[in-house]
Amino acid sequence: MRYGHFDDQAFEYIIERPDTPTSWVNYLGTERYCAIISNNASGYAFYESPKSQRLLRFRFNSVPMDRPGRYVYLRDQADGEYWSISWQPVAKPLDQFKTVCAHGLGYTRFVTHYRGIEATARYLVPLDSPVEIWEVELKNTSSEPRHLDVFAYAEWCFWEIQQDAFNFQYILYTCRMGYDADIVDYSIRLWPFREPKGFFASTLPVESFDTDRDCFLGAYRHEGNPTAVEQGKCSGSIAVGGTPCAALHGTIRLAPGESRRFAYVVGVGDAKTAGQEYKRKYSDPRSVEHELARLADYWQERLAGYQVKTPDPTLDSMVNVWNQVQCHTTFNWSRSASFNEAGGRDGMGFRDSNQDTLGVVHCLPEPVKAKLVDLLKAQFADGSAMHGVQPLGFTQGPHNRQGEVFSDDHLWLLVSVAAYLKETLDFGFLDAVVPYADEGEASVYEHLKRALDFSWSKRGPHGLCLGLAADWNDCLNLKGDGETTFSTFLFLLGLNELLEIARRQSRRDDEAHYGGMKRELEGAIDAHVWDGRYFLRGFLTSGRKLGAASSDQSKIFLNAQTWAVIAGAASREKLVSAMDSVHEYLATEHGAVLNYPAYTEHDAEVGAITCFPKGLKENAGIFCHANTWAVVAEALLGRGDQAYALYRAFLPAAKNDTADHYSMEPYVYSQFIVGKEHPFHFGRARNSWLTGTATWGFVAVSQYILGVRASYDGLIIDPAIPSDWEGFEVTRVFRGATYRISVRNPARVSSGVRRLVVNDEPLDGHVVPVFPAGTTVRVQVELGR
Amino acid sequence: MRYGHFDDQAFEYIIERPDTPTSWVNYLGTERYCAIISNNASGYAFYESPKSQRLLRFRFNSVPMDRPGRYVYLRDQADGEYWSISWQPVAKPLDQFKTVCAHGLGYTRFVTHYRGIEATARYLVPLDSPVEIWEVELKNTSSEPRHLDVFAYAEWCFWEIQQDAFNFQYILYTCRMGYDADIVDYSIRLWPFREPKGFFASTLPVESFDTDRDCFLGAYRHEGNPTAVEQGKCSGSIAVGGTPCAALHGTIRLAPGESRRFAYVVGVGDAKTAGQEYKRKYSDPRSVEHELARLADYWQERLAGYQVKTPDPTLDSMVNVWNQVQCHTTFNWSRSASFNEAGGRDGMGFRDSNQDTLGVVHCLPEPVKAKLVDLLKAQFADGSAMHGVQPLGFTQGPHNRQGEVFSDDHLWLLVSVAAYLKETLDFGFLDAVVPYADEGEASVYEHLKRALDFSWSKRGPHGLCLGLAADWNDCLNLKGDGETTFSTFLFLLGLNELLEIARRQSRRDDEAHYGGMKRELEGAIDAHVWDGRYFLRGFLTSGRKLGAASSDQSKIFLNAQTWAVIAGAASREKLVSAMDSVHEYLATEHGAVLNYPAYTEHDAEVGAITCFPKGLKENAGIFCHANTWAVVAEALLGRGDQAYALYRAFLPAAKNDTADHYSMEPYVYSQFIVGKEHPFHFGRARNSWLTGTATWGFVAVSQYILGVRASYDGLIIDPAIPSDWEGFEVTRVFRGATYRISVRNPARVSSGVRRLVVNDEPLDGHVVPVFPAGTTVRVQVELGR
Repeated sequence: MRYGHFDDQAFEYIIERPDTPTSWVNYLGTERYCAIISNNASGYAFYESPKSQRLLRFRFNSVPMDRPGRYVYLRDQADGEYWSISWQPVAKPLDQFKTVCAHGLGYTRFVTHYRGIEATARYLVPLDSPVEIWEVELKNTSSEPRHLDVFAYAEWCFWEIQQDAFNFQYILYTCRMGYDADIVDYSIRLWPFREPKGFFASTLPVESFDTDRDCFLGAYRHEGNPTAVEQGKCSGSIAVGGTPCAALHGTIRLAPGESRRFAYVVGVGDAKTAGQEYKRKYSDPRSVEHELARLADYWQERLAGYQVKTPDPTLDSMVNVWNQVQCHTTFNWSRSASFNEAGGRDGMGFRDSNQDTLGVVHCLPEPVKAKLVDLLKAQFADGSAMHGVQPLGFTQGPHNRQGEVFSDDHLWLLVSVAAYLKETLDFGFLDAVVPYADEGEASVYEHLKRALDFSWSKRGPHGLCLGLAADWNDCLNLKGDGETTFSTFLFLLGLNELLEIARRQSRRDDEAHYGGMKRELEGAIDAHVWDGRYFLRGFLTSGRKLGAASSDQSKIFLNAQTWAVIAGAASREKLVSAMDSVHEYLATEHGAVLNYPAYTEHDAEVGAITCFPKGLKENAGIFCHANTWAVVAEALLGRGDQAYALYRAFLPAAKNDTADHYSMEPYVYSQFIVGKEHPFHFGRARNSWLTGTATWGFVAVSQYILGVRASYDGLIIDPAIPSDWEGFEVTRVFRGATYRISVRNPARVSSGVRRLVVNDEPLDGHVVPVFPAGTTVRVQVELGR
Repeated sequence: MRYGHFDDQAFEYIIERPDTPTSWVNYLGTERYCAIISNNASGYAFYESPKSQRLLRFRFNSVPMDRPGRYVYLRDQADGEYWSISWQPVAKPLDQFKTVCAHGLGYTRFVTHYRGIEATARYLVPLDSPVEIWEVELKNTSSEPRHLDVFAYAEWCFWEIQQDAFNFQYILYTCRMGYDADIVDYSIRLWPFREPKGFFASTLPVESFDTDRDCFLGAYRHEGNPTAVEQGKCSGSIAVGGTPCAALHGTIRLAPGESRRFAYVVGVGDAKTAGQEYKRKYSDPRSVEHELARLADYWQERLAGYQVKTPDPTLDSMVNVWNQVQCHTTFNWSRSASFNEAGGRDGMGFRDSNQDTLGVVHCLPEPVKAKLVDLLKAQFADGSAMHGVQPLGFTQGPHNRQGEVFSDDHLWLLVSVAAYLKETLDFGFLDAVVPYADEGEASVYEHLKRALDFSWSKRGPHGLCLGLAADWNDCLNLKGDGETTFSTFLFLLGLNELLEIARRQSRRDDEAHYGGMKRELEGAIDAHVWDGRYFLRGFLTSGRKLGAASSDQSKIFLNAQTWAVIAGAASREKLVSAMDSVHEYLATEHGAVLNYPAYTEHDAEVGAITCFPKGLKENAGIFCHANTWAVVAEALLGRGDQAYALYRAFLPAAKNDTADHYSMEPYVYSQFIVGKEHPFHFGRARNSWLTGTATWGFVAVSQYILGVRASYDGLIIDPAIPSDWEGFEVTRVFRGATYRISVRNPARVSSGVRRLVVNDEPLDGHVVPVFPAGTTVRVQVELGR
């Protein structure tokens, strides 16, 4: 059963029925003001930091689910009946209440028909302002004159989310609400000397207001039946302490056929200055249209860097619009704020944000460079890294040395910096001097070397990387002498990236030094990690093998196979055998599980993975992030049919028609899909939006299936596609030039470029050379053997 | 307007209408299993620790307010109409739905009449078991046979409350629910190797069940309209991950006039063992009756230590029942778990729990002694103290040296230990050796000296105690050279207590040493703290006076006046002038505000108090705890009329008939009442139950107004009562003997004992000597000049 469809022309996902199994949300705003909104207008807002600058409140894991939000209520003065423009919270019967929600690029729109009123609400966050706009248009589609009450409502959060969720002795006695000139004024004082402010303005003249939630809703009521809406009038409450909200009530008369537009503006700032200014500005509907036009341009420019047309429309919807939007969202907000992440873990995960750059570096090289600097600042002088960092509050010092050291965090710098260099050829960045998190400073190049040196210093009895607190899999806590092949392969990849840079920069000593390191590592890999048909996941501190045919519980792990391929860590024969084992043991119609069989018993040497029920999260769940690596691996092996099959299995757009079971948004990736060993919910997705799947899903399809990827020397074209595709088109902006790539597949192969024509000129190989910025390059590719 | 009344015969408070302005709650359970339940059956449960062993979930500051809880739904099979035994969550119209809630001692009972069914639900926690019982009795009061569905429902919490509120990536993927033999099995695995378990059993045969909240409630629904109840059948869901609940459904046929009893048992432990055992045990209604009888005995014994009969029935209701119940609750749970305290701050506040002993030491000397040891362990070797401590997880070490040092924490040991000694004469306790929080150990007596030594070492420019992080008033953060008269007076009181002990133990060196300290301190007090008509609150680090007629903002503080009297820090003339100033500037019909005028501007030298809006919390709110000290002070001055007037002003029972405005429970104290400068809510109470007001309210009325208090030499009788009282009776158990005290006031004075007759024998003075344990002592007192 489906709930909506993609409208790629409008860059929208249209939700046709509002009773989705979970909240399907959109992120409005760009790098600073973030508004999250669901298909039922629930959600919250924050400015710069979801942890310490939370403006609108949200109740996570709440009953009724996912409240409050940005509600606009309409009330018919003729008989007092009321509804909300979004289905929730009033929730009129769906046989009479017709509503459509469109999630677009930077906006969400509701269009609702009920009782002869067509109500449109458009929510957007302008590009450069710390505000959100709720634009409402009401049209009388009946044949009678209508007299309506309109109420807009939101609840304020106490800025600091931890306090907001726990410290009721404090937060309930801090607010100092005000109201003047159609604007609600939210102000609190935090000790010492911090006085955040917010405002909520109406361009529709206000007839009554509430600033105290308890007064607006009434005791023993909820957002679905507020006493003020029922009565047609707010109480004029001014909360001085208590439960701050903003509720503004106006009235409208509409002749038959008549319509009227007005707006609400919620934002950070002083009601008397910023509030007045924004209210004035957006009193003119053209200003709102102008903001929408600017947003369209903003997104158009971002999306234009990679556009495709393939035989698979679900793939196109994802690649051209939503996968890229999701990449920008993770790049902005890492894993900090969603309907699932409450925002208590603020800032960036080190490994997360390094990877998040990969999905946007082609269109945002400068912001990526700035983020890389923020991440480099979170690396310690010994080469290891802070596991999480909040750049807003970051200061260098020994205080950053808290928490455990992970075996992979620092290594991702090699991947992210190399990707930035391949995209930009900005080798000067390697000479930039960046401080370490604890003490001292060094060039970016030196930072990269230290990352490798740290891993070199943390090898175990078999010469592989120690598992430390964990590797990418947070729940494999090997510790002691435990070793991880995942980090070992990532280390190898990192060595290869550095060696390539050293070679291009003629750093001969480093070539020799890290070349030796690489050979020794390869020797250890060769000697210890092959289990006969596939690769081990590692060794436990007792010496037991992890993920071996002989293991007690889980006998095979996905990441060990995929990363062997990605790092090129063994012969093709072994790599193919390993990926064949993935298909044999791990792959399902919803993607490949992380490990098999699932753990059922606690194992202290293995870690927290052994605590989760079978098929959930890291314990044999279908971790989508890790599935993207399987796609990359198959593509690297040239097995396009396998790569595409793995890709389609967890592609959310491909779940659109079974969304009642899949349950999460079909337009963005979720963190995981319940694995095959779960007793009930195999195939059900969880934790949408903020996942490394975004960036790697985009990398996998754009760079490996479609095969268009940056290299130092030019644009590689090396597709690995389903053999029944007759071809596809890609437009890729690379170092300022636009490459229009047309790939034909007359021989129906799944990989292999047999002909490359650039601007009508045949070339050898599959690398398109770099053309001057501003030019357009025609690239024709023919696949075949 | 009132919502209920006291039934002192039954030791109950009866709530006649359920739509109270806030949730009015009761604490079930004793020292280990705690169940909090409101007059609408909302609330939660935990075992030993509200932070890390939370069994039933609650949503704080939620909408709809205060959910979930312990809900029993009834559904008429004739037409599908359903209701809940408590008014909420289904909330049938109150003109048809008749319900009464009785909060009793260790139980809460609902009796509801609706549609010809009389439904009784009794909730209780047995004395020694980690379970709660929901006993239900249904009676058909109609003339037709009835066929009812019965659903019982609760929601499980993820044990660790911080995780429960934030870490949805984790908590939603951990539970492993089960169901067998009428019992729901709740189990989660926490890394490493912790596997808490809970169960929910029905003695009514189960016909259907749910263990997944989302299945029981249904999407976009809430506890007021669960889909399972609407349909008359649960779905049989087994949550493996997800949102764990327990919902058990049974059916009942009742002939006209017929009734039936059954029970639900919720508890900590394994469903297959503990669950089965408790289910079997409470299948017999006599077992439930037996638990109720044991609870009655338990409370009877505790309350019997102090019983009164006075001309003021509200005073009697408080003193004989509820104030004492509240004292036991704060003694058990400090400030950790209420409808306002979320439980994130676990364990004991150092100053809080020291004071909490004062309200129970007369009936629980042994548990008080054990708690004092726990507190002494939280004192550092330098004499200062940890601000908070969790004895369950406490280990000695330098790791305890975190957070700031407060100027008062350690000094409360002198007050609590002295009270214990006066009650018990257990001077041997002083020789017990107790470790310090950081390192080393010493006798209790040495601990006390070090507390004084620490304060002595932390004096400021005027020789008064430094304010440090804060004194009792957490929001006066004077720091630097800032000095506090409150802590100075408390220090003086502590010195007096130690000197008395030293004298009785013939510790001459200490008498000399601390006597000298006392004289020097009194000199400093004499020289610096008098402001002309009242006492200063202190000095700021810049040298500015705090709480002086010349101050910019607040010109007078309550605690400076009351504690001058309590410590006997000045001449009677000054003390009287100070208390007169309290009446002039601070006292109101709802109690005395903490300071006046309220702060309106940030003042960095004063502290966080300057952040709260006027009239809230520490900024000119009516802090009830501090009001009790005003009562004590007036009584010490012999001004019984003033003492009683101050006492009545904030006495919750006296607010019973204006409860719609007062808003909190009329049977227990709240932390504060909104002060007179608040623009709207003067007189509205907030934060009930867990407040130092409990212990000090009881001390103030029992020891100072009624004037019966322990001393080393016997029972002091020194009332300070309203002059229009003709007398009162007190029964007090003291060192095992029972004193039946009858006070006559023929001269209508407000204080002064002119005649004392003990067992028919006239005695001089006003101290009743100690009689042998087990005896009953008749004490006749006549007041007069």
